[in-house]
Amino acid sequence: MPLVRITPQAGKPPDYRRALADNVHQALVECFAVPPTDRFQTLHELAAEAMIIDRDYLGGPRSADFVLIEITAGRPRSTVQKQALYRCLSERLQASPGISPADVMVVISTTQSEDWSFGHGIASLLTQPA
Amino acid sequence: MPLVRITPQAGKPPDYRRALADNVHQALVECFAVPPTDRFQTLHELAAEAMIIDRDYLGGPRSADFVLIEITAGRPRSTVQKQALYRCLSERLQASPGISPADVMVVISTTQSEDWSFGHGIASLLTQPA
Amino acid sequence: MPLVRITPQAGKPPDYRRALADNVHQALVECFAVPPTDRFQTLHELAAEAMIIDRDYLGGPRSADFVLIEITAGRPRSTVQKQALYRCLSERLQASPGISPADVMVVISTTQSEDWSFGHGIASLLTQPA
Repeated sequence: MPLVRITPQAGKPPDYRRALADNVHQALVECFAVPPTDRFQTLHELAAEAMIIDRDYLGGPRSADFVLIEITAGRPRSTVQKQALYRCLSERLQASPGISPADVMVVISTTQSEDWSFGHGIASLLTQPA
Repeated sequence: MPLVRITPQAGKPPDYRRALADNVHQALVECFAVPPTDRFQTLHELAAEAMIIDRDYLGGPRSADFVLIEITAGRPRSTVQKQALYRCLSERLQASPGISPADVMVVISTTQSEDWSFGHGIASLLTQPA
Repeated sequence: MPLVRITPQAGKPPDYRRALADNVHQALVECFAVPPTDRFQTLHELAAEAMIIDRDYLGGPRSADFVLIEITAGRPRSTVQKQALYRCLSERLQASPGISPADVMVVISTTQSEDWSFGHGIASLLTQPA
């Protein structure tokens, strides 16, 4: 159900981008109660000059490996679940493709179940178990 | 008032993209109480490898025609209105440019009237009829 | 804390884009209580045919200089603060890079403090002063 927009800096090799996307998804499965087949990701590479990111605000130091992960969730999660997700994302992306925890920024938005249609013209989450 | 982000797979011809955008807007006008001139759409084509989408989760089968439609609304809509919109989008896009209902994913986000400025430095929806 | 997505039409020179981004940030600092080092901006240039924008709805006339500014905030702001931000953005962008107030559209979304990780696998705003 989450829709995940991943914004890395342009120029990373395909293997890197794939490992990035795979591990973001695995973190959601392990720590955010997302079914393994519930995968809807878009990757938006941006040139360095199109990502104007403070190096140190509330964290850092951020580098050219900085990645922005925007998650739109379809139902509420607890603070504890969100904290677990941040930890999982950080650990997984450090392991592969090897991104420093300082470079992983996450922003979560939450919508309602009725706000999603996965196709066929219906509000899919209203007619399925949550 | 809605801001509509449309993400088709890259490589579709201009006529296809235009029919896609036009029919998304017509569905909003017909089924979501959007005035005909209230049209603010952005199209973001993505390469196939940048759209990692499960083929069958809660629907499908999804194909290379998959399109993601993200709608940011400026005032609340009822569940019934949202359901009507999903149906309208599905039917219109099947008619033109010929997208299978399985390939049409929609996500709605809702903000408040005060969250919008359509220009001139003012909160446009606070000074206009809703 | 705000995440700011700026969408100008493609083809503007680098100096223009930089002045655009700088002045958007300065408006947030001056009128939206954003610390100067709290800067997280992405720029997404779009070809003219990928921005389908009504020329006159609730404002205008809009031109090829139209820019969409999407702000995701991490804590609530008052209506008055939002109105001040629209005014500041309009005035600053008119001064530099010289965008007509008719061409500045702003949409604000609001999340919660727990929805943000600025890195290091933690919910950064829960462990820092707001």
